[in-house]
Amino acid sequence: MSVSVFEHSWLKSLFGDDEIAAPFSLDQLKAHVIAFELALTRALGQSGAIDPEAAARIIEKCQTFTFVDSAISDATGRDGVPVPEIVRQLKDHVGEPDARFVHFGATSQDVIDTALVLTLGDVNAMLEVRLRAVIDGLDGLVSDHGAQPLMGRTRMRAAMPITVADRVATWRNPLVRHLQRLDDTRPRLMVLQFGGAVGVHDRLGDKGDAVARAIADDLGLGHADTCWHAMRDGLAEYASWLSLVTGSLGKMGSDIALMAQDGIEEIALSDGGTSSAMSHKQNPVKAELLVTLARFNAVQLTGMHHALIHEQERSGAAWSLEWMLLPQMAVATGTALKTAITLISSIERIGAPDGAL
Amino acid sequence: MSVSVFEHSWLKSLFGDDEIAAPFSLDQLKAHVIAFELALTRALGQSGAIDPEAAARIIEKCQTFTFVDSAISDATGRDGVPVPEIVRQLKDHVGEPDARFVHFGATSQDVIDTALVLTLGDVNAMLEVRLRAVIDGLDGLVSDHGAQPLMGRTRMRAAMPITVADRVATWRNPLVRHLQRLDDTRPRLMVLQFGGAVGVHDRLGDKGDAVARAIADDLGLGHADTCWHAMRDGLAEYASWLSLVTGSLGKMGSDIALMAQDGIEEIALSDGGTSSAMSHKQNPVKAELLVTLARFNAVQLTGMHHALIHEQERSGAAWSLEWMLLPQMAVATGTALKTAITLISSIERIGAPDGAL
Amino acid sequence: MSVSVFEHSWLKSLFGDDEIAAPFSLDQLKAHVIAFELALTRALGQSGAIDPEAAARIIEKCQTFTFVDSAISDATGRDGVPVPEIVRQLKDHVGEPDARFVHFGATSQDVIDTALVLTLGDVNAMLEVRLRAVIDGLDGLVSDHGAQPLMGRTRMRAAMPITVADRVATWRNPLVRHLQRLDDTRPRLMVLQFGGAVGVHDRLGDKGDAVARAIADDLGLGHADTCWHAMRDGLAEYASWLSLVTGSLGKMGSDIALMAQDGIEEIALSDGGTSSAMSHKQNPVKAELLVTLARFNAVQLTGMHHALIHEQERSGAAWSLEWMLLPQMAVATGTALKTAITLISSIERIGAPDGAL
Amino acid sequence: MSVSVFEHSWLKSLFGDDEIAAPFSLDQLKAHVIAFELALTRALGQSGAIDPEAAARIIEKCQTFTFVDSAISDATGRDGVPVPEIVRQLKDHVGEPDARFVHFGATSQDVIDTALVLTLGDVNAMLEVRLRAVIDGLDGLVSDHGAQPLMGRTRMRAAMPITVADRVATWRNPLVRHLQRLDDTRPRLMVLQFGGAVGVHDRLGDKGDAVARAIADDLGLGHADTCWHAMRDGLAEYASWLSLVTGSLGKMGSDIALMAQDGIEEIALSDGGTSSAMSHKQNPVKAELLVTLARFNAVQLTGMHHALIHEQERSGAAWSLEWMLLPQMAVATGTALKTAITLISSIERIGAPDGAL
Repeated sequence: MSVSVFEHSWLKSLFGDDEIAAPFSLDQLKAHVIAFELALTRALGQSGAIDPEAAARIIEKCQTFTFVDSAISDATGRDGVPVPEIVRQLKDHVGEPDARFVHFGATSQDVIDTALVLTLGDVNAMLEVRLRAVIDGLDGLVSDHGAQPLMGRTRMRAAMPITVADRVATWRNPLVRHLQRLDDTRPRLMVLQFGGAVGVHDRLGDKGDAVARAIADDLGLGHADTCWHAMRDGLAEYASWLSLVTGSLGKMGSDIALMAQDGIEEIALSDGGTSSAMSHKQNPVKAELLVTLARFNAVQLTGMHHALIHEQERSGAAWSLEWMLLPQMAVATGTALKTAITLISSIERIGAPDGAL
Repeated sequence: MSVSVFEHSWLKSLFGDDEIAAPFSLDQLKAHVIAFELALTRALGQSGAIDPEAAARIIEKCQTFTFVDSAISDATGRDGVPVPEIVRQLKDHVGEPDARFVHFGATSQDVIDTALVLTLGDVNAMLEVRLRAVIDGLDGLVSDHGAQPLMGRTRMRAAMPITVADRVATWRNPLVRHLQRLDDTRPRLMVLQFGGAVGVHDRLGDKGDAVARAIADDLGLGHADTCWHAMRDGLAEYASWLSLVTGSLGKMGSDIALMAQDGIEEIALSDGGTSSAMSHKQNPVKAELLVTLARFNAVQLTGMHHALIHEQERSGAAWSLEWMLLPQMAVATGTALKTAITLISSIERIGAPDGAL
Repeated sequence: MSVSVFEHSWLKSLFGDDEIAAPFSLDQLKAHVIAFELALTRALGQSGAIDPEAAARIIEKCQTFTFVDSAISDATGRDGVPVPEIVRQLKDHVGEPDARFVHFGATSQDVIDTALVLTLGDVNAMLEVRLRAVIDGLDGLVSDHGAQPLMGRTRMRAAMPITVADRVATWRNPLVRHLQRLDDTRPRLMVLQFGGAVGVHDRLGDKGDAVARAIADDLGLGHADTCWHAMRDGLAEYASWLSLVTGSLGKMGSDIALMAQDGIEEIALSDGGTSSAMSHKQNPVKAELLVTLARFNAVQLTGMHHALIHEQERSGAAWSLEWMLLPQMAVATGTALKTAITLISSIERIGAPDGAL
Repeated sequence: MSVSVFEHSWLKSLFGDDEIAAPFSLDQLKAHVIAFELALTRALGQSGAIDPEAAARIIEKCQTFTFVDSAISDATGRDGVPVPEIVRQLKDHVGEPDARFVHFGATSQDVIDTALVLTLGDVNAMLEVRLRAVIDGLDGLVSDHGAQPLMGRTRMRAAMPITVADRVATWRNPLVRHLQRLDDTRPRLMVLQFGGAVGVHDRLGDKGDAVARAIADDLGLGHADTCWHAMRDGLAEYASWLSLVTGSLGKMGSDIALMAQDGIEEIALSDGGTSSAMSHKQNPVKAELLVTLARFNAVQLTGMHHALIHEQERSGAAWSLEWMLLPQMAVATGTALKTAITLISSIERIGAPDGAL
C-alpha cells in the first residue's frame, strides 16, 4: 500500500521502472526547462526580438542557475504550475538589466508542454527498444518451440489443435503494428509548444514564427503553424498508443496465466512467485502483472480523452488532469514491456503438456 | 429516458444519426453476412477447396435466402452469437448435397468481424465527408469573422486579446490531423477476418491463405498473414480515433457554450433551444451536446481498451464487450460531426461583444 | 452489430431484458410525465397556488391528452429536452383560460428527473426480486452440492482444497450486502425533483415547499428541503450500486468460465452455446456474458461520476450524459441477474471432477 | 511532470496531502503488519491453536523486529506481494523453535487487506473531519453572504435570480449525505481479512472462527462469517464514495471557476494563482483543481469496479489493480477536501457583481 506503486519502497520492484521514470525525474525536468529557456533566449537574440548581447548574457547566467525547489513547491500550490516561480528565480539570478528578457514571449505552458515532449521523446526511444526486444523474444520462442502442438481454445473451451507459433503470433503481430503506430504518431507528438500567454506570440509580433522555428530546430522538435496549447490530440493519441501496447501485452499475460493453470499446464515458467502460506506454489506473477498494467492503462486512458475538452486558450483543470495520468501511463507501459521480456525469457516449456494432443 | 438515446422515439432527433446508424442496420448486417458467405464460397470453388459446381449452386441459392430472424434471435440467446443459427438456416436452404460446403472453413467470428469491418468502411466514408465539412465550415467562419477581436482566456480568466481566427484554429487544426490519422489507421482496420475455428484455417490446409486473399480481394479488404481474431488492436485504435474526433469537437462545444454566456456574449447562435419554464431563454443545446458526446466516447473508450485482453483464440467476454460499445461510439461520432456542422452554420456573430476590446 | 445490443433484433435475446426495459418504454415515460403534471396540478389547486377549479379542469383534460410524438421528437432536437414541446401540446389541449396554469411552477428537469425516479422505483422492485432469486439459487446450489470438494485456486494456481460451499459463498455474500445497500440508497434516490426554473420555486413563493410535499406524497416519493436538480449524488450512488451488482455477478461468471475449462472440468452446465465451426463444443456463454456485463457497467460508471460535475443550476451537458448511460446500466444489471438465475439453474455438476481431490 | 503528482517535489504542494498520505506511509504499513501478526499470535495462543508460551515468545520477539526493506523490495518483484519475504524475515528473527508458529494460519492477503482496512480507518477519520469543516465553511458562507442575489444559470445561460444561499445549498447538501453514506459503508469496509491460504482457515479447523473474532476485536475491526478475500464489494463501494465526495466538490469548483470569469464576476477570491506571462492575472487555481481531482477519481473508479471480477480464491491481477488505484483516490479526496476548505475561506465576495440583479 502506498500512494504510488511505482515509487513505493516495497512495491516498486514489481511495478516501478527506474529507466522509464528517469526522464520524468526532477533533474531531467530541470534540464528540459533550462533547455527551453536557453533555446528561447538564443532564438530571441538571433531574431533580434531582444538584444543579442542581452541574450548572450542570459545564456551565460543560465549555466550557473540553480533551482530553489522549496520555493518552487510552495509557489506551485498557489499558482497551479511551477513556472512563474522558476521564472522569478531565473530573472533574479540574471539580474538587471537583462531580467526582463528572461522567458520573454513565453508562458508557463510553453515550458511545461515542451519539457513533457522532450521527456516523451526519451521515453519513446526506450519503449521502442523494448518493443523490439519483446518481438525478438517472441521470435526466439517460436524458433525454439513454435512447432509444438497446443490446444486452440475459444470461449474458454478446447476447440481445435494449433501450434505454439499460432498462439505466439497473436502476441507478436500487434507489437509490430505498434512500432508502425509510434512512427505515425511521432510527428504529431514531438512538436514544440511555444505561443506565449494565449498562444499567438502576442509579444513577438511578426517574429513569433521565426523564433518558434528556431527553438524547435534547437530542441530537435517539430514545428506547427499554430501552437497546440489548447489542442491536446497529440497527447491523447499518444496515451491511446501506450494503452494499445499494454493491452496487447495484457492479452499475452492473460494467456500465459491461463496456460499455467494446474490441469492445463501448457507452459512452465522458471521464476514464479512464492506464497506466504504455501511454499510449494509457483505463481505466474509476471503474467498477472501484465493484465493489471493493461487494465491500469485502459482506465487512465479515459481521463486523457476527457482532457481533450480543454476550454478556451488554457484549461487549468484539463491540463492538470494530464499531469496526473500520463506519466504513470508511460511508466506502466515501460514496466509492462520490461516484465514481458523477463516473462518470455522465463518460459522453460510451452505447448501441450505431453508434447502432443 | 430510454435504453438507447440513439433510438429513443423522443430523443433520437437530438442524439441519433440515421445515416451513420444505417450501416449498422439489420439489413446491412444481413447483406454483409451474405457478402462474406458468397465471397467465401467463390474463393473455395476457385481454389478447389470445394467442388466448383457445388460452389456455383450455393451461390445461386444464396440469392433466394431469407433470414428467419426470430429463430436467429432465439439461438443467439443460447449460442452467444447469431452465426451458428444463420449457418444452419443457410445450410437448410441450400440442402443436400451441398449443405456441408456452406460456411466451409469459416467460423462465427470470421463472419461477424468481417461484417463489422465492412460496416465501419461505410461509416468512415461518411465520417470523413463530415469531417471535411466541419473544416470547411470553420474555414468559412474564419473568412467571415476571423479578424474580429476576441478576449483570449486562460484558466477561465481574461488574458490577452486574440482574434476569432486564433480561437477557431484550435477547433480546426486537430480535425485536419484526424483525417491523417484515419488514413494511417485504415490499412490496419480494413482487414478481412478469416481463419476458421481457431484462426489457422484448420480445414483448408495449404489453401487457406489463397482462399483468404481471394475473399479479401472480393470484399475490397486488406489481408493479413494471420487473421486478427484474438488481436483487437485495430478496433481499439479505431475507437481511440472516434474519441479523438468527438473530444476535439467537445472542446469546440465547450468554448461555444462559454462564449454564449450572458455577461460574456462572444457568440450569437440562431437556433438555441427553448425552455419549458422560461420562454425568453435560448440555450446553446448543440454546443452542450458536443461536450456530452465527447465525454460519452471518452467513457466508452476505456472499455474498448479493456477488450484488448482477449484470452486465447477467442474470448466471448471481451468480444461481446466490443459489440456493446463500438457501434454507439460510431453513431455518437457521427452525431457530433453533424451537430458541429449545424452549430457552426448557426453562428450569427462571433468575437468580442462590441466588436472591439 | 447494432447501435444497441439491448434492442438489436438478433442480439437482444442475449443482452436484452424486456422486463427491465419496460419501465424505460415510451409508454411508461408518458405515464410518468402525466402523473407528474397531474400531481403538480392537484397540489397547486389544493395549496391555492392556482384556482382549484382550473386545476380540476386541467386534470380532467389530462385524461384525454395524447402526445404527438413526431412533434416532440423534432422539438427535442432543438430544445435538448422533450418537455417544452410536451407542455406546449398539453397547454394547447387544455386551452384557454387554463393553459397558463399547466406545468405552472415546474421546469423540464422536474418532469424528466421525477419520471426517471419513478422508473427506477419500478426497476429496483424487479432487481430486488431477482437478487433474492440469485441468492436462493446459490443457496440451493449449496444444499445440493455444497459439501463437494473443490480445489481452491489462488493467482490462477491450485492452492488448497475447499468445498463448493466455500466458493459459492464468495458469489453469494456480496449479493446479500447489495440488498442492504439498496435499502441504504433508496431514501436518497427516490426523491421528488421539483423546483421550477432554477430550483427555488421562483413562481410559487411561500407555497413552493407545500406544493412539493404534496406532489411527493402523491407520487409516493421522498421530499428534500432543496430539490436535487444540480446535485446528482443520488444517481451516481445508484449507478455505483448497479455496477457493484454486475461486478459481483461478473466474478461468479469468471469463476464458472474458468471451472468449465477442458482440463479443469469443475462444473458441468446443461445449456452451453453451440459453435458454427465445431458442433461438439459447448460454450459457457452465460458465464462469459456476466463478465461482459460487469465490465460494461464498470465502464459506464465512470461517466456517471463525471456527470457529478454539473455546472450551476442545470448543466445540459452533464444531465444529457446521464441519459446516455444510466438506462443501459439498469438493463445490463437486469440482464446480468436474469442470466445468473438461468446459469445457476443450468449447473448439473459442480466440484472437483472426480468428486474428490 | 513526475510519475506521481502526489509526491513530486514541485507539484506535491498542489496535489499532495501529507496528512492523508501518512496512513499509507511505509512506517504505518509496517505498524499495521506487525499489529496484525501480533493480534494473530495472541489469538492463536489464547485459542490454543498454538502453544501459548510460544505465542508469548513470538510477541516479545516482535518488539525487536526490524524490516529489511531492500530484501522485501527485491522479493516483491518476484512474489508479487511483500508478505512472503516479511514472514521469512520474521520467522528468522523469532528463530527456533517458534518460527513455525509465526503467521500460522494466515496468508499474504490477510496481512495486506487488513493493513489496508486499518489505513482506511485512519484516512476516513480525517476525511470525515474535513467534510464537516467544508460544511461548516459553507454554512459560514451562507451566514455571511447567503442573502446576496445571484443570477441562477441553467444550460450556461442566465435564467432567473436566486440567492447565494440557493447556490451554496447545491454544494453543501450532498456533503451531508456523504457523511451518512460513510456511516452506511463503514461496517462493510472496516472488516478483518483473515482466512488463510484459500480463505477457509484450512490450518485452524474449528478454531478458525474464534481466532478470527479475537483478531478482529483486538484490531477494532468487524468480523464476517466468511473472509472477503475474493469479495471486493466493500472496497469498490468505498471507492465510489471517494468519487462521490470529489465529484460534489468538483461541482463547486466548476461553479466557482465560472463565477470568477471576467464578465461574470460573481465571486472574488483572495489567493488566486499568478501567471508567468501576465502578472495582472489571478487564476482560480483551487477551483480548477477541484474539477481535476473530481475527474481523476471518476477515472480511477472504473478500475476499482473492474477489480470486482476477482477470479477464484485470489486474483493477483485484480488485487494488484486495487493497489494501483485506491491509495491515490484516497489522497485525491483528501486534497480536494483540504483545497475546498481553503477555497471557501478565500472567498471575499460572492453574489451578483453589483450586489443586485
